[in-house]
Amino acid sequence: MTAPTILHEYAESGNCYKIRLTAALLGLPIERREYDIMKGETRTADFLANVNANGRIPVLQIGDLFLPESNAACFYLADGSPLIPADRFDRADMLRWMFWEQYNHEPNVATLRFWLGFIGEQGLSELQRAQLPAKQAAGEAALKLMDQHLEGRAFFVGDAASLADIALYAYTHVAEEGGAYRLADYPNVQAWLARVAALPGYIPIDS
Amino acid sequence: MTAPTILHEYAESGNCYKIRLTAALLGLPIERREYDIMKGETRTADFLANVNANGRIPVLQIGDLFLPESNAACFYLADGSPLIPADRFDRADMLRWMFWEQYNHEPNVATLRFWLGFIGEQGLSELQRAQLPAKQAAGEAALKLMDQHLEGRAFFVGDAASLADIALYAYTHVAEEGGAYRLADYPNVQAWLARVAALPGYIPIDS
Repeated sequence: MTAPTILHEYAESGNCYKIRLTAALLGLPIERREYDIMKGETRTADFLANVNANGRIPVLQIGDLFLPESNAACFYLADGSPLIPADRFDRADMLRWMFWEQYNHEPNVATLRFWLGFIGEQGLSELQRAQLPAKQAAGEAALKLMDQHLEGRAFFVGDAASLADIALYAYTHVAEEGGAYRLADYPNVQAWLARVAALPGYIPIDS
Repeated sequence: MTAPTILHEYAESGNCYKIRLTAALLGLPIERREYDIMKGETRTADFLANVNANGRIPVLQIGDLFLPESNAACFYLADGSPLIPADRFDRADMLRWMFWEQYNHEPNVATLRFWLGFIGEQGLSELQRAQLPAKQAAGEAALKLMDQHLEGRAFFVGDAASLADIALYAYTHVAEEGGAYRLADYPNVQAWLARVAALPGYIPIDS
C-alpha cells in the first residue's frame, strides 16, 4: 500500500491551487490539510519543525518526505507525464517560465491580490503601501510580456499545455481580485486562460 | 558543425556566474557576450527584440533559441548529467531549492550586494532605502535556513553536488560584498562553500 500524497495548503493561495490543478489534470489523488495563514498557522513551532522550516505553504508530503515550493511540487507530480515536454530545450523553457513566474509575476500579481483583496489597503504597513506603485507597474509589465509571448501561440511552450501554463494560470486568472489589474487589457492572455480552463480534468480554484 | 552556445551576460552577476560554473563543472564550452547593465545595455530595443523581451541577463543562446532565467539555463546545460539527481524526489527537491533561491534568497542576499556594493547607499531611491531593513532580515533568515539544512549534510540534496548547490553558491559566496551579511555567522554554510569551491572543474566568479 502506498502512503497518500498530502498537500499542506491554504486553499485560496494560487501556489497551492497549482499543485491541485496539476494533480487533477493528471488524475492523481491527493489529500488536503488546510492551514489558516491569516492566523499564522504555518509559523507554529510544530509546522516549522515537521512540515517546512521556511514557514510557508504549499508543501507536498510524499510518504515521510516533505517538498516545499509550489513549482517543485508540480514538477514532482508531473515528472514523466506529458505536462513536462520531452524535448530538452522545451523542458528547460518550461522551467524558464516557472522561474519567471516566481520572480517577476508572483511577487507583483499575487502580492497585490493578497494585499488589496485579502488584507485590504487599510491593513497594509507603510512599507507595503510605499511599494504599491512599483508592484502595480511590474505586474502590468509581467501581464504584457505574457500577452506578447502568447501572440500566435496556444500555450507557453511548444504546442501543448505544460507546467508553465499551470504555474502562470494560477495567479493570472484571479489577478483582478483586489482591483489592481484588468485582464481585458491582455486579450491573448484572456484567450489562453480559456484554453487552460478547457483542459480535460480542469478544476477551478474554489473546488 | 554545432552552433556555439552563447551566454549573454554581465560577468559580475551571480545569476550569470551560475551558468558559467555549471558549464565549467560539466566541461562544456560557452562563448560569452558582455552587456553593461549599469549603462542599460539590456534595455535597448535590439536586446528586447532579439535576446530577451524581459530586458534581463543572463540569457543562454543555443543556436537560434534563447533561454532566459539563470536556473533554467543551468538545467538545460546539466540535463542528463549527474548535476541533476536521477531519483525522482531528489530531482524535485533540487528544483525546490532553486525556486527558493530565486524567491527567498536572491531578492535579499543578491539585491543588497548590488544595492550596497555596486550602486552604493547614496545612490539608492527612497523606496529602496526603506526596504533595506526588511531585506536585511529576510536575507539573514535565508542564510540561517541554509545553515540549519546543511547541519550534517555535505550538499543540499542527496550526497552529491547538484544544481541546487550551484544556484545557492553563486550569491552566497559573495554575500559579504556591500557589507550586509557576515558569513562567519553561518559555519555550516562556510564549510559547504569550501566543498563547492573544491569541486573538480570549479571556476571563480572573476575568471
